[in-house]
Amino acid sequence: MVLKTRTYHDPLHGAITLDRADPVEALLVELIDTSVFQRLRRIRQLGPASLTFHGAESSRFTHSLGVMAIARRAFDRLAAIYPELGDYRAAVLCAALLHDIGHGPFSHTAEEVFGSHHEHWTAQILELSAEVRGLLDGFSADLRPEIHQIYQHQHPVPCVWQLVSSQLDCDRIDYLMRDSYFTGASYGQLDLDRIILALDYDPASQQLIVAKKGLGAIEHYLVVRYFMYAQIYNHPKNLVATWVLEKAINQAKKLLSAGSLKADATMAAWLTHAVDELPLDRYLAQDDYVLHYHLQQWQTHSDPILADLCQRFVNRQLLKATDISHYPYLRQMEILSAAQCQAYGLVADTDIYVGLRHIRNRGYALYQQGIKLKTPDGLTEISQLSPLVQTLIQPCHRTWLIHPAELPVAEIL
Amino acid sequence: MVLKTRTYHDPLHGAITLDRADPVEALLVELIDTSVFQRLRRIRQLGPASLTFHGAESSRFTHSLGVMAIARRAFDRLAAIYPELGDYRAAVLCAALLHDIGHGPFSHTAEEVFGSHHEHWTAQILELSAEVRGLLDGFSADLRPEIHQIYQHQHPVPCVWQLVSSQLDCDRIDYLMRDSYFTGASYGQLDLDRIILALDYDPASQQLIVAKKGLGAIEHYLVVRYFMYAQIYNHPKNLVATWVLEKAINQAKKLLSAGSLKADATMAAWLTHAVDELPLDRYLAQDDYVLHYHLQQWQTHSDPILADLCQRFVNRQLLKATDISHYPYLRQMEILSAAQCQAYGLVADTDIYVGLRHIRNRGYALYQQGIKLKTPDGLTEISQLSPLVQTLIQPCHRTWLIHPAELPVAEIL
Amino acid sequence: MVLKTRTYHDPLHGAITLDRADPVEALLVELIDTSVFQRLRRIRQLGPASLTFHGAESSRFTHSLGVMAIARRAFDRLAAIYPELGDYRAAVLCAALLHDIGHGPFSHTAEEVFGSHHEHWTAQILELSAEVRGLLDGFSADLRPEIHQIYQHQHPVPCVWQLVSSQLDCDRIDYLMRDSYFTGASYGQLDLDRIILALDYDPASQQLIVAKKGLGAIEHYLVVRYFMYAQIYNHPKNLVATWVLEKAINQAKKLLSAGSLKADATMAAWLTHAVDELPLDRYLAQDDYVLHYHLQQWQTHSDPILADLCQRFVNRQLLKATDISHYPYLRQMEILSAAQCQAYGLVADTDIYVGLRHIRNRGYALYQQGIKLKTPDGLTEISQLSPLVQTLIQPCHRTWLIHPAELPVAEIL
Amino acid sequence: MVLKTRTYHDPLHGAITLDRADPVEALLVELIDTSVFQRLRRIRQLGPASLTFHGAESSRFTHSLGVMAIARRAFDRLAAIYPELGDYRAAVLCAALLHDIGHGPFSHTAEEVFGSHHEHWTAQILELSAEVRGLLDGFSADLRPEIHQIYQHQHPVPCVWQLVSSQLDCDRIDYLMRDSYFTGASYGQLDLDRIILALDYDPASQQLIVAKKGLGAIEHYLVVRYFMYAQIYNHPKNLVATWVLEKAINQAKKLLSAGSLKADATMAAWLTHAVDELPLDRYLAQDDYVLHYHLQQWQTHSDPILADLCQRFVNRQLLKATDISHYPYLRQMEILSAAQCQAYGLVADTDIYVGLRHIRNRGYALYQQGIKLKTPDGLTEISQLSPLVQTLIQPCHRTWLIHPAELPVAEIL
Repeated sequence: MVLKTRTYHDPLHGAITLDRADPVEALLVELIDTSVFQRLRRIRQLGPASLTFHGAESSRFTHSLGVMAIARRAFDRLAAIYPELGDYRAAVLCAALLHDIGHGPFSHTAEEVFGSHHEHWTAQILELSAEVRGLLDGFSADLRPEIHQIYQHQHPVPCVWQLVSSQLDCDRIDYLMRDSYFTGASYGQLDLDRIILALDYDPASQQLIVAKKGLGAIEHYLVVRYFMYAQIYNHPKNLVATWVLEKAINQAKKLLSAGSLKADATMAAWLTHAVDELPLDRYLAQDDYVLHYHLQQWQTHSDPILADLCQRFVNRQLLKATDISHYPYLRQMEILSAAQCQAYGLVADTDIYVGLRHIRNRGYALYQQGIKLKTPDGLTEISQLSPLVQTLIQPCHRTWLIHPAELPVAEIL
Repeated sequence: MVLKTRTYHDPLHGAITLDRADPVEALLVELIDTSVFQRLRRIRQLGPASLTFHGAESSRFTHSLGVMAIARRAFDRLAAIYPELGDYRAAVLCAALLHDIGHGPFSHTAEEVFGSHHEHWTAQILELSAEVRGLLDGFSADLRPEIHQIYQHQHPVPCVWQLVSSQLDCDRIDYLMRDSYFTGASYGQLDLDRIILALDYDPASQQLIVAKKGLGAIEHYLVVRYFMYAQIYNHPKNLVATWVLEKAINQAKKLLSAGSLKADATMAAWLTHAVDELPLDRYLAQDDYVLHYHLQQWQTHSDPILADLCQRFVNRQLLKATDISHYPYLRQMEILSAAQCQAYGLVADTDIYVGLRHIRNRGYALYQQGIKLKTPDGLTEISQLSPLVQTLIQPCHRTWLIHPAELPVAEIL
Repeated sequence: MVLKTRTYHDPLHGAITLDRADPVEALLVELIDTSVFQRLRRIRQLGPASLTFHGAESSRFTHSLGVMAIARRAFDRLAAIYPELGDYRAAVLCAALLHDIGHGPFSHTAEEVFGSHHEHWTAQILELSAEVRGLLDGFSADLRPEIHQIYQHQHPVPCVWQLVSSQLDCDRIDYLMRDSYFTGASYGQLDLDRIILALDYDPASQQLIVAKKGLGAIEHYLVVRYFMYAQIYNHPKNLVATWVLEKAINQAKKLLSAGSLKADATMAAWLTHAVDELPLDRYLAQDDYVLHYHLQQWQTHSDPILADLCQRFVNRQLLKATDISHYPYLRQMEILSAAQCQAYGLVADTDIYVGLRHIRNRGYALYQQGIKLKTPDGLTEISQLSPLVQTLIQPCHRTWLIHPAELPVAEIL
Repeated sequence: MVLKTRTYHDPLHGAITLDRADPVEALLVELIDTSVFQRLRRIRQLGPASLTFHGAESSRFTHSLGVMAIARRAFDRLAAIYPELGDYRAAVLCAALLHDIGHGPFSHTAEEVFGSHHEHWTAQILELSAEVRGLLDGFSADLRPEIHQIYQHQHPVPCVWQLVSSQLDCDRIDYLMRDSYFTGASYGQLDLDRIILALDYDPASQQLIVAKKGLGAIEHYLVVRYFMYAQIYNHPKNLVATWVLEKAINQAKKLLSAGSLKADATMAAWLTHAVDELPLDRYLAQDDYVLHYHLQQWQTHSDPILADLCQRFVNRQLLKATDISHYPYLRQMEILSAAQCQAYGLVADTDIYVGLRHIRNRGYALYQQGIKLKTPDGLTEISQLSPLVQTLIQPCHRTWLIHPAELPVAEIL
């Protein structure tokens, strides 16, 4: 009996036990053991956010296990009530486990910097990774197509993809809980039990819906999401770290094409090609270790801009962000010009060291079919029932002036 | 006012606020901002333990902040009662913050593999890092010598070094709490408030002691330490990961000296010299990223042993460990021989793939002056008052046979 | 040293240590030890809410310690920055500790049922309790008047009363945290450290204000308050329990005045007089034990209505509440009439067993001067800066039809 | 679907959902709703311990739900592996839920004071309570006899009673976790997931056993139990509270038999009869409210001893306990005599106000068949495998001198 189970002790979900006597769970164990999945250990969940919230050091590996664990709880409870869902267990759990397998270095940060898309690579891995494809096809010929359908929101039973990827999916639930736990932002704590109990299935439309008495739990989840974005994910120091990284990579691209940069084959390929068009092996060879290794090496490069940007990133001597959201657009442009004038002579390139970053933050959006509640009058969009959610739809905009800490920007505001 | 404080939000200790209007805390902020201290972000607290406990991904940076935070609480409480301690605040807090600054890649794991000593490098950094030495000497000429005294257990007031490094120090308290939090091993939770309240100072001997009513809290702390070593730190999968890494590094050394290995200047220096004799810059250039980067590169090396060992480590396809503790020594030797015979032909080198690891686990030791309680009869060693602690002194030995998973060792046991 | 401190180990705030060498904290210890304060152990924080949330069994005693602990943290931090506040420490901490000392049985529930006001009795106790008054006057002649000023929001330094009783006071912070902890409603968890750091003092207006960067923490606190009211405090089962209790007390009053009820002197006084006009001793003699004891006794009374209502309350065989909020007012009245017709013959008195309860829930109100943020343009009301808080001002109304479970109300809806 | 479940939100175990479509769980809901079970809301889990640890205010009701929740998790996991256990589900869950239904006021404290036995009354309730007996017999004619077998450790399948009542049962697990949570003694936290995973079933002996790899989790549980007894349950203030209560009850008995005490019929019956011989109704009419109500009334009794003892208990002006464990037995007797001499004239009765209390604390005992581990050599008693558990077998004795706080006992020690 002991040999037939594999247990992961998770700080959030406790013991996640997979039972290898169950064919679906045996498959999950084998998927976890592939080198492609193990690679997620080398990709930080929140990219450079640990420079701001020092506890945010956990990986996509950890998060992916958590999403699968939540999906199993939610799915198994619904399937016990609605046995017609039972056939989709393998697809839901594999899709939950593998949803982030295509992520690159620093997760979303690299996507911004390199213009890549992890969803593209997740799909590619299903097709082209011999390990992963072999396991899925060995289980059932239908499984791989079904997982694709889930990721493309085209599965004939909407509930199946909604559990994995929607406004109320197991992915979001896990990352909010996990990022709250690791950053110590206790306002991010969710009431997972109440959320799971709030989830229901509507046989008529085959959608994942929310039971009316679960409204409060879901309102709370959406508010927490808003707070986590406002306070953690969009923290100005994160914007600045991404800015510095982006400028460093752009500078590295220039130097490489000019023949004056050392980079290994993986890094060189990433700097010279559209990343989403690379061969799979080249894509997978990149991760936090490879990227960060190069940044460390380039700290002593002869190009002063590249060297400086890499030192700033590696040693956390970042630029500063000053909130100028309360000024009108034209005034913001003037401030930018004035700051670049101030910076002239102080920095090697004012466009690199001084700039604007605009972010838009909202807790809820109506795309992806939103979230439906079961009311006596049928299914109703949650934002029509909750003034709080209605408020969260309004985006909150902020504009930051990014500049070196020593620039006296107070003078021009 | 806002500009005068720096706050680190820690998942364990909450808001750690440093007040820059206080000269000691201003110094702490500046020390944290040095590149030498920031380097600790690139060194995992528990080395490869996240291969076994996936949540164990946090860094020495995070831990070092925590030790300083606990030391500040403990010290400030004692200094309020015993004002004669007040002069040592800077030394205690700096020593707490910097105590791990000399750690190398994968923390203790690298020490085992490379034969280095982080204490040596902590001392070297105080002397030779211009940033760190400059800040300390700028604060006071006595500070640096005093910190050395603390690390060498030679400070004239024993309480001062005991807070930082003893059987009951702020270092141990933080790592037990933190590793418990991140691995999800809830038995590791300490009652920090009760421990802090248990600490007392004995003006006669100038030692850190435990108030009699604090016996229970300290017994509990020692038992937790025992459990964390038995269940987490000495988990057989950790032993195996260290084994694989050690064999890979040894193989790399051989190949490098034979001229058939590619390594950057840092890695090459580490492979060809006694690490503790390297120049400081070379030592500091090494970290988890650099070491792991090379392991990843070597996965495709033409030497099959190096390539295989690196693949095993990177992709977590480790060897297996079978407990043979219950056999007498000679029988263990026979089992080793028999297993190596089984492996002959299956693996490239039986000494590398089959071996024994012996570990000794105990929760309490009498060195470093132990832990003293204040009783009506004077100071008494805690093990004389607590049968539980007396038991923890007895070491618990275990012997593991390390071997490839496919070896049918059951046949020879 | 040990003898000079008193430590309360609190599940939320950890060790709350009072230092008797400090005159203010010595006074707090003596106040806690009075029989009037100890009486709070016999008064449940959430009245009959444990009938709905079984963990909600904690007392006003526990909460009062917590409010004092938070007030001490918040005040001491502000007073370190603004030394002019230092003089008010005794007043703030005593007012925080004693703010609920006037509560009667089942806290707010008894106020609804008996029409009493705990604020009135808190003030009376300061004046008329020899123990409490003696301690306060023994500390300083100004202390008692100052505490009254705090409770009446008339203290010359508004910050002083705002810490104890305002839209953002230590009372609310503790009860939200505590009720969340004990009911297991994890969405109620606050980030106390961030809230404490968000609090600031405005020397010009002498008000408690919020630093601009603390906006998120305070928004979160207000949202949590909304959720706790919506989900916990105003849960329909709580409304029903209060309804049953109120009807039982009214019936007991009738029977007592008719000479056909047995009650001890305390209970008789409460049933026959305006409670706020009772002598202090009579008021204080009443608590959860005395009230509940009588309800238990009356379960076997010969009056079938009183006996039934008491049995329902004691054995948690409550009435049911059906949400009819979505109907217009006139339709709600019709439903009430129809339900009373249904009940005719089934219950002894349709007005007692069938009725409407209306509640209004909102997370934020502008009275008590609201909550001010420090912005570049001066102090600004938080609702003008936060769309989320603006939404919380809108009250949310709900109407419940209360009726016996066996009534087929579905037929009339 | 919603109507078919009942959910209890528990601060420790999260949502405990009972599914009324399952006949066993429907029965559990009906048992919870009986007045006999609801009575447990009026009985504090830890008697007067909240006088020492203010958070310890939770009831037997809360604990009983928790025991059932843990038993369900443990049982359902074992029954999935060993289907032959499936038939015992109703018996195990009902026995877990009802195991404490016979407790009287202040739980174990009343047993000490009145000489009653809750196990006796639990058995009586199964036989004599029409509600409970009716529900059990209505489910199956075998159920009631089976539950009796569990309580008497005579069920033919030992695993069945061991889950409910043994050295490693769901009762102990819940109360350790719960008392730790409510008192804030964080060292009491258990790793429930690891304990559940450690439990196994031995088909040969039909016993509940521990898997070898679960040794650590069970060692930890036993150590925690030791700490909770040493620090919480046997805290000297608890001993003193029980002492005062016992003396008050004895005094009340004397006064009642002399015709000079007012007590209601329930209280009078308890004071004048052997409690275990009372009729069931009389027994059940007693609870914390009734007992405490009388203590409050007796505070103003004309007998100065009764009045004083009741005031001490109600207002927490308890006696003091001084540890004299380190003296030999004869010296302890001398100290007692000397203290009584000191007290002569100060107190109304030296035997009541001065005395000795002896307690014996141990973490593990070999009775009830102990705890067995599965090793290659068969089932082995845990204490033979763990030096730590071996140590916990040794009882730890302490002797306390109980005396009024104002007695100068330091002079005679």
